[in-house]
Order: sequence, then C-alpha cells, then structure tokens
Amino acid sequence: MRPQILVTNDDGITAKGINCLVQAIKHLGDITVVAPDGPRSAQSNAITVHDPLRYWKQYEEPGVVAYRCNGTPSDCVKIGAHAVMKSPPDLLVSGINHGSNSSVNVIYSGTMGAAFDGCMMGITSIGLSLCSHDPDADFTEAVRLSVPIVERVLKEGLPKDVCLNVNFPNIPDIKGVRVARQCRGRWMERFVERVDPLGRPYLWLTGDFVNLEPDASDTDEAVIAAGYGAVTPCHIDVTDHAAMAQLSAYNYDTEKEV
Amino acid sequence: MRPQILVTNDDGITAKGINCLVQAIKHLGDITVVAPDGPRSAQSNAITVHDPLRYWKQYEEPGVVAYRCNGTPSDCVKIGAHAVMKSPPDLLVSGINHGSNSSVNVIYSGTMGAAFDGCMMGITSIGLSLCSHDPDADFTEAVRLSVPIVERVLKEGLPKDVCLNVNFPNIPDIKGVRVARQCRGRWMERFVERVDPLGRPYLWLTGDFVNLEPDASDTDEAVIAAGYGAVTPCHIDVTDHAAMAQLSAYNYDTEKEV
Repeated sequence: MRPQILVTNDDGITAKGINCLVQAIKHLGDITVVAPDGPRSAQSNAITVHDPLRYWKQYEEPGVVAYRCNGTPSDCVKIGAHAVMKSPPDLLVSGINHGSNSSVNVIYSGTMGAAFDGCMMGITSIGLSLCSHDPDADFTEAVRLSVPIVERVLKEGLPKDVCLNVNFPNIPDIKGVRVARQCRGRWMERFVERVDPLGRPYLWLTGDFVNLEPDASDTDEAVIAAGYGAVTPCHIDVTDHAAMAQLSAYNYDTEKEV
Repeated sequence: MRPQILVTNDDGITAKGINCLVQAIKHLGDITVVAPDGPRSAQSNAITVHDPLRYWKQYEEPGVVAYRCNGTPSDCVKIGAHAVMKSPPDLLVSGINHGSNSSVNVIYSGTMGAAFDGCMMGITSIGLSLCSHDPDADFTEAVRLSVPIVERVLKEGLPKDVCLNVNFPNIPDIKGVRVARQCRGRWMERFVERVDPLGRPYLWLTGDFVNLEPDASDTDEAVIAAGYGAVTPCHIDVTDHAAMAQLSAYNYDTEKEV
C-alpha cells in the first residue's frame, strides 16, 4: 500500500509553496491536502474551540485530493487525520512556508504548529519553510532539497516525540543541508499606531529580528546564512529539565491557614 | 519604585480567575491588566498579523489599571509591554486559567502562550492554572498558593529563557507545591458532526486526555493527582538536542543538478 501523506500549511490552500510541495512529493504516496481557506500565519498551535469547523473539497487530481478548511493549521491536521482520512496518515508535511521559521519564529509559526500537532498525535511530521515572504517566491531549490528529506523521513521515521523544522535560504544555489539547533533570538517589536476613517486608533505589530548568538556556527540562523538548509529536530516536551533542580526552593508542604 | 506587573489571561478580562489573581497580588506592585475582550482559550502563541489591534480601558482602581484588547493573549502581552506600559514590566503573570495546562495542554494554552511570549521578550513570566473549567470555580486555594510563588519569582527571578507553568488541583485542601516535569500525554480526539439549520455540516472537536506515563511520580499530572500544585519550568528552545546526533545522516552537501 502506498504511503498516506497529509499535507497542510499556514499560508492557505492557494499559496504557491504548498502547491509546489504537492507536485514534488505526489510520487511518494497518496496525498491528502487539508489546508486553511486563507492565510493563517503566526497561528502557532491555536485550535478552534469556540466556533464550528467546516471543510470543502477544493480539487482532485490523480493521487491528490485537496480540501480547504475554515480553521487553523492545527485544526487542519486534526480534521485531516480524524475526519477526512480513513485513518491517521503515515506522514504529515507542512509547508512549504513563505517565510522563515528559524529561531523563535518556530514558536509563532502555524506551519510548525501543524507539525507539532502531528507529532503530538504520534504522526511522523515535518515543517518546511523558505526564507522569503514573496507570494511568488522561487521554490525550485527548496523543493529540490525537500524531496530527499521527505523520502528519508518516510523511510526511516523520526525519534519519538520529535518533528523536523526545516528552513531553506532564499538563494539560487543552496549548498546542502545541516542539522542545526534553534538559535537564541528576539523580535524587537513595536506597534505602528494609525487612525481609521472613523477616528478610532488601531495598532499593527512590526519589528526587527535580532540574533542573540551572532558568533555561533551551529544554529539554524548561522546555517541558513552560510547557504545551507537547516534541519532542526523539535520536541513537544517544553520542560527545562536542567532548571528543575535550580527551582527546588519551590517544593514545599503547606498547612492550610485557619 | 514598586514592581510593575503585567497581568493577562486567555479566558477574557471578565473571567473570575484573572480578577481573583489581581486582587490577591495587587499589594505586590502596580498592576496593569491587558486581557482579551472575550475567551481566547487554546490560542497557543498565536499573534494577530492580518487584522488591526485595538484596546480600551476597562476599569481603574487604586494600584490597578485594566484594559481589554481584541487580540490573543500573546497580543495582549505585546500591547501591554510596548503600547500601554511606559516600559516592559518587571513581571508578567498570566491566569489564573480556568482549566489545566499540564502535559501537552501547555502547547495549546493561550495562558502559557502569553507566558512564553513574555519569556521571549526577556520578561520574568508565570502562567497559573486551576484544574477546573467551571466559570464560577473556587480559586481560594489556587490564590493562597499562587501568592508566595509570585512573591518568590518577583524577588529571585527565574533562570534565563525559562518561564513557569503552575497548575493547581481543584480540591479544597491543596497539600503544597512540587516542581514537576511535563507529563507525556495525548488527546484521543474525535469530531462531533452536526448539521446547521441550513443543512450544512459542521464539526466540533472533542476528546479524552490519556496520560502516557501513568506510573511516573515526577510528572505534573502525578503531582496534581497527589493533591499538590505542580510548578514546571518551561523553556523557549524547542530543539531536541539529544536527537541532533541521531539525525547526522541529514547533513550533506549537494551539487546542483545540471
């Protein structure tokens, strides 16, 4: 039986990145696409709990059936695995995202939210991203390097509770791929204040990313800057195990006050 | 100068949990509340990038000024730190949430999304939760045990890039507090399918939580079940450092195909 592959993203089902991905990997298995009906960038692992979820068939072609959904990327994974597909897929691939999900961007990313969701469900999961927000970005190189990664993951699986965050530089000749750790970084954020035509103020978030480890060579940021795709294994246990011992003063027994 | 404390949540500014928290800690500093204008459960680290953000003063009392915001918990932290307050706060407290954020719930939680957001901005951050979804839950015990935790964190700070995920059992006499790690767990999810009055199908997500480490005693789930509050240090580096060596086969150099 051919591998069953679920594909989603956070840019929406009509985005160039997801369509390039589907065409590039459809020879590897039966593809089910469940993707948002519009942009859902920066949705992290948000799921819809206060509104009804719906999905509709978007298109079908040999080996591919695609649905759009009114929810988040995480919702799409759950709907794909539990409602659309007969059983959970062998592989989830999320992307290819228009924009970097390196460093702390992984925390906000809907693309990686979907991958984390698959991982929590026990599905082998990968998120793929290209460091360009251009809706018409050139995915040729990202696709060329993504296919062998998807093939390897499909064949070998991944360590338990681990999914991959893969980020490609937006350059014409990517040199290869490197396993890299998440770089320490921070968005120096600010709000642009505007006034709408009715005189009411509103805010847009903007900011600049700052690499807090500019001299490190083993981070995703460094690897991308050096012209390589960065493969970062990510886990779903956010415990800082090293910090547990430092916090032993928080252990205490209490008698209820009378 | 009194400590500047930013308070937010994901249940919305009128929820009982956040108001109990504000009254319990307002003697510790100047409180600025920036909280969602309605429920934003399960919003994870979602931020609003496609719509304008707005905020409005909700109430003011001695030592407390409170604003409601149309965004997510993460948006509230950013608006609090960058737009409402003169400078980023000394401490961020998110909660007290109506419902558990133990185990993998931490990934979906808007309460913890806010805490992670504060952490990424370099703000000392805590998320507090009570294991009850009742809108009229009794926060007496959670408040009694939260205050010394908030005091300690305010005095001693936290390790770099670490925030706290604190979960209290919903029982009349909490025995104390234990530092605990995130339990491995999984939601066994399913969708309830319904049909709206116009004949269109829609879905609601539901499911049951399964503890995958029922025999462990050092997990948040175990500590809560034993009648203690669980304090879990969480970090913002999701790299699985141990898995990096296992993935060395992914390192390769490539010549572009001609």
